[in-house]
Amino acid sequence: MTADPQQAREWQEGFGHRLRTLRKESGLSQMALANAVGLHPTYISEIERGQRNVSLVNIRALAAALRVPVGSLFD
Amino acid sequence: MTADPQQAREWQEGFGHRLRTLRKESGLSQMALANAVGLHPTYISEIERGQRNVSLVNIRALAAALRVPVGSLFD
Repeated sequence: MTADPQQAREWQEGFGHRLRTLRKESGLSQMALANAVGLHPTYISEIERGQRNVSLVNIRALAAALRVPVGSLFD
Repeated sequence: MTADPQQAREWQEGFGHRLRTLRKESGLSQMALANAVGLHPTYISEIERGQRNVSLVNIRALAAALRVPVGSLFD
């Protein structure tokens, strides 16, 4: 299952879409989420638009800041 | 929830431990899993020892190769 660029992009977009949904459900702005995890707001926006291959540690930090199980970011 | 180095290391070790468990349950060697996702076997070993901050795309590829839901890598 070597990820070709198309598959990689789909995974990033899927994650970004899910992050946006959970963030909105939590009532946090991109700015507030960015501050909570120590990332730049632009980076949060890029993640949500599927433009970033987010790291494990940032994934865990985002889940913690949203107070959701990590797995729910992949539902 | 800005991840300090200690927290980041714990997340990486947790993920690595879980990956090893699921890999062994699947019956795949580190070499076979590495080939399946297009990574070097040493990299798989480093991930399992908590030494790598794995990317989203590699996390998804690992789950696909192990035929498990991504969330189960975080259980």
